[in-house]
Amino acid sequence: MTAYAAAFNSTRPGVTVIGAGAMGCVLAARMRERGYSVQAVLSRSRETAEALAQAVEARVHSEKLHHLPPETRLVACCVPDGALAEVALRLSRVSHPWEKTVVFHTSGALPADVLQPLAEEGARIFSFHPLQTLTTESESSVLDGVYAGVEGTPPAVAVGIELAVNLGMRYLVLSAEDKPRYHLAASMASNFLVTLQALVQNIMLSLNIDRATAQEVMAPLVRGTLDNLSTSTPEDALTGPIARGDLETVHRHGLALRQHFPHLVPAYAALALETVTLAVRSSQLGAERAEEMVTLLNKLVTTPIPASFAE
Amino acid sequence: MTAYAAAFNSTRPGVTVIGAGAMGCVLAARMRERGYSVQAVLSRSRETAEALAQAVEARVHSEKLHHLPPETRLVACCVPDGALAEVALRLSRVSHPWEKTVVFHTSGALPADVLQPLAEEGARIFSFHPLQTLTTESESSVLDGVYAGVEGTPPAVAVGIELAVNLGMRYLVLSAEDKPRYHLAASMASNFLVTLQALVQNIMLSLNIDRATAQEVMAPLVRGTLDNLSTSTPEDALTGPIARGDLETVHRHGLALRQHFPHLVPAYAALALETVTLAVRSSQLGAERAEEMVTLLNKLVTTPIPASFAE
Repeated sequence: MTAYAAAFNSTRPGVTVIGAGAMGCVLAARMRERGYSVQAVLSRSRETAEALAQAVEARVHSEKLHHLPPETRLVACCVPDGALAEVALRLSRVSHPWEKTVVFHTSGALPADVLQPLAEEGARIFSFHPLQTLTTESESSVLDGVYAGVEGTPPAVAVGIELAVNLGMRYLVLSAEDKPRYHLAASMASNFLVTLQALVQNIMLSLNIDRATAQEVMAPLVRGTLDNLSTSTPEDALTGPIARGDLETVHRHGLALRQHFPHLVPAYAALALETVTLAVRSSQLGAERAEEMVTLLNKLVTTPIPASFAE
Repeated sequence: MTAYAAAFNSTRPGVTVIGAGAMGCVLAARMRERGYSVQAVLSRSRETAEALAQAVEARVHSEKLHHLPPETRLVACCVPDGALAEVALRLSRVSHPWEKTVVFHTSGALPADVLQPLAEEGARIFSFHPLQTLTTESESSVLDGVYAGVEGTPPAVAVGIELAVNLGMRYLVLSAEDKPRYHLAASMASNFLVTLQALVQNIMLSLNIDRATAQEVMAPLVRGTLDNLSTSTPEDALTGPIARGDLETVHRHGLALRQHFPHLVPAYAALALETVTLAVRSSQLGAERAEEMVTLLNKLVTTPIPASFAE
């Protein structure tokens, strides 16, 4: 490995933020609070660029990339994934001391490499993906202690680590090859939680409980479960009829699904089978009862649903 | 409908708790705090009965059901589902002024009817299921504002409502026919959340991130998502590559799954398809892009996985 020193003389280089959506807003505010000078906000929309520039006291705001201040040494590309390649290419054509500049993007799915045109101009590039769900209204404190997935060449990753530390965040250094799996895990944790709650609300709606009430009904249970997960392994936190091998209750759940929500049978059965695996791993469920549970779940999926339901 | 009055002259009848597990402990403590006199704790295990009786200052503790104090007017059966029918039968044979007594159980899956032998002796029966995940160590404050599913005949349900109000809880009145769907929804909300987090940790483990760290990495994202769900509908809270129709990222996720976790493909695809439905309902995803996403997900499931993976 080639030796390398810190990229900047200053611990807080001058920053330009590109993109003034949720990520740009929260990151810029956090940088400003933690002593970075945000010199410019560049965005396709002049209005959002101006609003964010005002909020973080940036001197420059513009919808033109060539308004990048020459004294900027750290560029944060907070644009949608689909826009990154083009922004990188157009930015690389801006006359700038790129060899003294570090550029990162905040996409969870894409590797640093999407910024390759800038690397060819001499910039260090990395990706920096905060594992948090953000809106333009989020307080910057939502980043407290949050992990960022950091990926790039070692000298660029060093800047990402420095950034995480300065922002009061934590970091997870990843290879480009790791990123799809990392992003898959994050997407499942967040997006499928939303989907799961939507399914739960659908079921409650069929009992005449409106979605907002269903949300309130389930909230303590979901939060309580999450609290358990913060102090126990999933193996220990798992409860319920599948874990305790309660075939009769799971059978009744299956009948209710087939009768009222036949289209949910595949998703239910797939998750139930993973739950059986988890319960076996946790030694809550013995091999024999697990076998019976799997047979029951398979029957749920493979038994044709009669046009007129009667069991 | 026949007219009926409150079951008790006192707003806080004398109580006996049967079963000293997590539910019995938390419910007894809460009742004691809220002015109920817990007269007895009966449990298969003399030790746990004694410990709980001491904690809630109950005069009687025993492993024998016929030690039910004759002045008890409210009996809480906090025993496992599988034990309920037998406890009800054996309790019904205990000489007691049953016609002045109300008996409830705390099972989410079973209807009040499982207490039928007691109804035949003249007792009012209902089921009262707090929608919260409990351990024997839980503070009784975990019941604050928690909903209880209450089911039984109207005069018995009235007692359940009274109990919820006295305990600082809320209630959801259900029919016996509703209970399987209600319990299915609760089980999915809680148990499948644990399963989902276990799957996420499995994926992170393949990146050499241990389970405890993975839990910390994902916690702010999961909690942030849950916070969004408390103020928005799932339609509005949904983000991520499926919702925004990012076929390329979902394709990369699919490749990562097929390569590293082929057995997770069915669960992933089933949840992803439900996520597509949710995204379409939220108008985030147009019909054409949704169609392409569904095709991609179906291909993920139906394409055989080569013995030696190479794409």
